[in-house]
Amino acid sequence: MNVLGYAAHSSTTDLEAFRFERRDPRANDVTIDILYCGVCHSDVHNARNDWGGAAYPMVPGHEIIGRVSAIGADVTRFKVGDPVGVGCMVDSCQSCFACDDGDEQYCQHGSTYTYNSVDRHDGMPTFGGYSERIVVSDRFVLKLPEGMDLAGAAPLLCAGITTWSPLRHWKVDSSSRVAVVGLGGLGHMGLKLAKALGAHVTLFTRSPGKEQDARRLGADDIVLSTDDAQMAAAAGKFDLIIDTVPYVHGLNPYLPTLAVNGTLVLVGYLGGLEPALQTVPMIMGRKSVAGSLIGGIAETQEMLDFCGEHGITADIEVIDMAAINDAYERMLKSDVKYRFVIDMATLKA
Amino acid sequence: MNVLGYAAHSSTTDLEAFRFERRDPRANDVTIDILYCGVCHSDVHNARNDWGGAAYPMVPGHEIIGRVSAIGADVTRFKVGDPVGVGCMVDSCQSCFACDDGDEQYCQHGSTYTYNSVDRHDGMPTFGGYSERIVVSDRFVLKLPEGMDLAGAAPLLCAGITTWSPLRHWKVDSSSRVAVVGLGGLGHMGLKLAKALGAHVTLFTRSPGKEQDARRLGADDIVLSTDDAQMAAAAGKFDLIIDTVPYVHGLNPYLPTLAVNGTLVLVGYLGGLEPALQTVPMIMGRKSVAGSLIGGIAETQEMLDFCGEHGITADIEVIDMAAINDAYERMLKSDVKYRFVIDMATLKA
Repeated sequence: MNVLGYAAHSSTTDLEAFRFERRDPRANDVTIDILYCGVCHSDVHNARNDWGGAAYPMVPGHEIIGRVSAIGADVTRFKVGDPVGVGCMVDSCQSCFACDDGDEQYCQHGSTYTYNSVDRHDGMPTFGGYSERIVVSDRFVLKLPEGMDLAGAAPLLCAGITTWSPLRHWKVDSSSRVAVVGLGGLGHMGLKLAKALGAHVTLFTRSPGKEQDARRLGADDIVLSTDDAQMAAAAGKFDLIIDTVPYVHGLNPYLPTLAVNGTLVLVGYLGGLEPALQTVPMIMGRKSVAGSLIGGIAETQEMLDFCGEHGITADIEVIDMAAINDAYERMLKSDVKYRFVIDMATLKA
Repeated sequence: MNVLGYAAHSSTTDLEAFRFERRDPRANDVTIDILYCGVCHSDVHNARNDWGGAAYPMVPGHEIIGRVSAIGADVTRFKVGDPVGVGCMVDSCQSCFACDDGDEQYCQHGSTYTYNSVDRHDGMPTFGGYSERIVVSDRFVLKLPEGMDLAGAAPLLCAGITTWSPLRHWKVDSSSRVAVVGLGGLGHMGLKLAKALGAHVTLFTRSPGKEQDARRLGADDIVLSTDDAQMAAAAGKFDLIIDTVPYVHGLNPYLPTLAVNGTLVLVGYLGGLEPALQTVPMIMGRKSVAGSLIGGIAETQEMLDFCGEHGITADIEVIDMAAINDAYERMLKSDVKYRFVIDMATLKA
């Protein structure tokens, strides 16, 4: 199946139009005509090989919304025309204890990512959502709730589930106090989802100008992390802090704001914790620092259904495919409220 | 009440005999004739002001075993002659949510430590168990199970509860895989308690010579942390790692040995985590690094009762009071199997 997409051909060149082959659908595959694809920070990092391991040509994109255009002989959960989503994974081993627990993102044999990965059946490279069409195993295709805005739904497949999964794992409910560090693609979803779960929600930010927007998105409180008095006033407060910041930053100012038994969970930063994490606040209150990666497939479906019930989608700026390189530059400057979504109807050779 | 003990008078001088005043018992107080007192690493650190905050003269000791010699008018749970224990705390606010949860060690108004602290009622300094007698509020006095060896019971009050509390908080049972880092006072209790809870137990150690002792204490496996092949073979294995090491050490080699959703809990080290903790293994398996401090009073009683049922006490070397300064030097060289306990009958002016 010949498909048009947009690809990076090296870590230093702009993305451009690219024709490539996708596999012929297998019996359990769903073929999806892509309508929208969100633009995630990790798309830039992968395209530019910031984390190593980039294989080119690379077609990024793992916040995919489309409509089913064909189904394999064994597919029963979908029919042609259904609005569906695909997130960061398109396959996993389906037999390890993590997959058995619905934690395909922690598959012990390695989940197959939507792009820059290798299909575990035919050894072909995977290509992502910056393209007109994708073929995905039915177990990794998500149903969209009735009436959900399709463009605004795209970021739920990564930014949404990445914040939803820790909210659920650490059992956030109406008795919880949750804080979110950073107001970007992930952070704005964290505010919306925590608020809809009934929690008391606080945004930690370095920018005083974000208060109005943060309140609109669900924050009950805003704490300026640059203001020592505000930080001191937040001592011992939070059951869960979701830290969405994607670059190196000190965690020590945040640990004292955790309640006894509280957890700070990192969802955006891959690297070393510098300056050195201080253990005293952790020991003196049985506090934890944890990491969390996207979420499982059943959990992603649960999140989409929850968003459908609560009228939640992402705040987005829709762009043409040809604007992707400018969008990357703007995203690196945090100049987007709060996620770019590519209108795939604008994709041209 | 005039009491003989052993005190440090400065951070640089040896401990020596010292007479001091204890409060007259209040209505809810238990007066205890001390029989044995364990020697904890933190005794050295406090006596030498390694952590700051030392007030002199300081009478260390918070692993106290004795017999009730008098009770206040309101005391109903104890009678004269009962064998009892006192651990690291002698009071707390009794009204914050942490105290309400039985987590007096995390009291939001600060628990009163057994020594080098200030009594919250009369403002007098607290003096510890290197002494002939102590007066303690009945809520902070522990009952010893029938027939328990009194000298071997002393270290349960700190080393025991410090390892028991994380085992219970992280719900260790016969389905769990637990590892202990370091085989000292805390580590040897960690092995015994985890094994008695039915877990599969592994010791991480840098010393090949510890294998035989570790197996006797409860270890099913020993992993030499200096052997890369052994560390690699332990990948993804442990639900809980209890890290008892009291000095700065890298955690990055241990994180990959945690299972998905696993936790490494620090119980011995106060300071910065260097080299920098790497977040990738945490994010790729929802792993946590946590801290834990001793345990609550009800939890300590639970641990003592459990030890009584399972015939568990510490492995100790009983010393005379006058040998304490030598014992500190030996302890700093890890030259003790596995805890010094002072026979208080040897205390002389």
